[in-house]
Amino acid sequence: MSDKFSFELKAVSGGAGRAARLGAVTTPRGVIRTPAFMPVGTAATVKAMFPEDVRAAGSDVLLCNTYHLMLRPGAERIASFGGLHQFMNWDGPILTDSGGFQVMSLSKLAKLSEKGVTFQSHIDGSAHELTPERSIEVQCLLGSDIQMQFDECTSYPCAHEAAQASMELSLRWAVRSKEAFEQYGGKGQALFGIVQGSVYPDLRARSIEGLVEMGFDGYSIGGLAVGEGQDVMFETLEKTAPFLPKDRPRYLMGVGTPLDILGAVERGVDMFDCVMPTRSGRHGQAFTWDGKVNLRNAAHGEDTRPLDANSSCPAARDYSRAYLHHLIKAGEYLAPMLLTQANVHFYQDFMAAIRAAIAEDRFAAFASDFRARYRG
Amino acid sequence: MSDKFSFELKAVSGGAGRAARLGAVTTPRGVIRTPAFMPVGTAATVKAMFPEDVRAAGSDVLLCNTYHLMLRPGAERIASFGGLHQFMNWDGPILTDSGGFQVMSLSKLAKLSEKGVTFQSHIDGSAHELTPERSIEVQCLLGSDIQMQFDECTSYPCAHEAAQASMELSLRWAVRSKEAFEQYGGKGQALFGIVQGSVYPDLRARSIEGLVEMGFDGYSIGGLAVGEGQDVMFETLEKTAPFLPKDRPRYLMGVGTPLDILGAVERGVDMFDCVMPTRSGRHGQAFTWDGKVNLRNAAHGEDTRPLDANSSCPAARDYSRAYLHHLIKAGEYLAPMLLTQANVHFYQDFMAAIRAAIAEDRFAAFASDFRARYRG
Repeated sequence: MSDKFSFELKAVSGGAGRAARLGAVTTPRGVIRTPAFMPVGTAATVKAMFPEDVRAAGSDVLLCNTYHLMLRPGAERIASFGGLHQFMNWDGPILTDSGGFQVMSLSKLAKLSEKGVTFQSHIDGSAHELTPERSIEVQCLLGSDIQMQFDECTSYPCAHEAAQASMELSLRWAVRSKEAFEQYGGKGQALFGIVQGSVYPDLRARSIEGLVEMGFDGYSIGGLAVGEGQDVMFETLEKTAPFLPKDRPRYLMGVGTPLDILGAVERGVDMFDCVMPTRSGRHGQAFTWDGKVNLRNAAHGEDTRPLDANSSCPAARDYSRAYLHHLIKAGEYLAPMLLTQANVHFYQDFMAAIRAAIAEDRFAAFASDFRARYRG
Repeated sequence: MSDKFSFELKAVSGGAGRAARLGAVTTPRGVIRTPAFMPVGTAATVKAMFPEDVRAAGSDVLLCNTYHLMLRPGAERIASFGGLHQFMNWDGPILTDSGGFQVMSLSKLAKLSEKGVTFQSHIDGSAHELTPERSIEVQCLLGSDIQMQFDECTSYPCAHEAAQASMELSLRWAVRSKEAFEQYGGKGQALFGIVQGSVYPDLRARSIEGLVEMGFDGYSIGGLAVGEGQDVMFETLEKTAPFLPKDRPRYLMGVGTPLDILGAVERGVDMFDCVMPTRSGRHGQAFTWDGKVNLRNAAHGEDTRPLDANSSCPAARDYSRAYLHHLIKAGEYLAPMLLTQANVHFYQDFMAAIRAAIAEDRFAAFASDFRARYRG
């Protein structure tokens, strides 16, 4: 399906299961080192960051949101500009979601049917329809390198019957998404299927069976990080990840904290995305190897230490906590700019440390050390 | 007074008067190439810019506001952090104003007396006093390289009698500022006197006479750009600048548009500061060699041209106007970030072009070409 898309599994490490994977996803726009964290660039920008700083932080790939971009500035318009990469000045790989999750969580009057979803834009109230076919068409107009099938994401908790019906709908939409991708998809672009089934192992197994039968370039794990808590998420991952094809990348959607990511890598996940580092940065919170720091706290007003004197990130290294606190109090743009940069950099340093630990087959020790030091 | 502060006049150019000056102000923290534009870093940050990008744009020196910094985070606190340069991660020269102008325009319940001004903070209502002695003490606590005497700035219009009384008060405050600077001022720090006298040539002459008699490292021209309009400003400059010492830098406070700056350089001014490039950037307006561009305008939604394909500024060169328009509509941080950077870069490129034109003694032709092309 994808001439220039491939995944190479390079090493495994970890405790009993040795499930942590080091790999590389090759796309026409470059290699994604896995385990990988994808900063979120919802509206064709990682909020408060220049694209060159997203790259300099160590990011190989971005996630952009189909729902937001189809509404503003519009998929056809972005296509007329030469695609999303050129539009947002990012020449690395881009992954797009299908839009389904945001339609249900952000739009107004969303109505679900076998065909797809009709809804009103949260921006201007205009009427839209998103179907598997249109979702893939939009993602191809955007020109993203890794695309998601159109799916339905269950909320938590969700009864078995409802979860089953939803998972089966997602499977039928997977068929239609794949057909649309064969029509619209470009050379080297990849399509991922999305495993659903809420917290039920039998449904997850059935979802995987259906998707693998169709054959996708990679497999996303959806329907987690929706309120079930870390323990349940990890349990569900344990009943899901081992049954996914070993030779394809695995992407856990919308996850998470550093400890979420660590536990998911431990259970065999390769790719992650989350708004946490960027959103927290805009709210005055910084991630460090010692845990989260709330710089709004008055105690930081006198603290001349940087966030991390040993960081290679200028934002974490060259400014005191007192200065960051001052910028937040004064409502200055530089506060979210510095904190977002520091947080994305931290996340990428964290992923790099995970990759190094797997490469050197000391992942279990790394995970244990990190948990002992980091205050979540 | 200042061992390491000096001004060298390198060349003159222009029409009949040949009043445009090329020079260099040497400070302990580096050389300021004049004519110079100082971006405004009110609260110890040039809004929406990383300090390294302020430098990369071609800025030799910043202006910071004494009033804001004495209120938050406080001058003594900044001193305890090692001074303003270290606090804000800017190792180049910093010029501070005296705080007087902002006290009168921003604070609450400001009361003026011979001694100084009492007022309430616009942030938390706390009571403060600013006198010539305290203004200089604060500026020395901040550690700025170029400091301003405490003065009163007249509004426009202002009757001759009131302008005279105010100018004479500023002269008496100049004496006290200079005495305080001799007490608090550090090695290589410079103190500028401020010429007042509204639009009245006799008062400007008297102000200059008084200040020059005291002897300052440089001379600021205050009380302009307060509503009198460009013609009156230029007329007043013609009655002021020629009478200032040729061997000292001249700083026109709070000016201005590119055409304001061009006309003031033409009349012998060396230094400028203004919030215009930064504030305009936050409001969706960009400066280019062809004039101002309002990127909020819907017409830019389809415009794939960058602001300036020939710019060395990434923000002006690497993003389409359509993308900038999109970012503004979406309320994204990247809009002010890119536009502020592009605008400060444009201002500094403009100053560099002015300096090159004076150096090559073709300033009159440069000014004429610029006016023919630029739509203000």
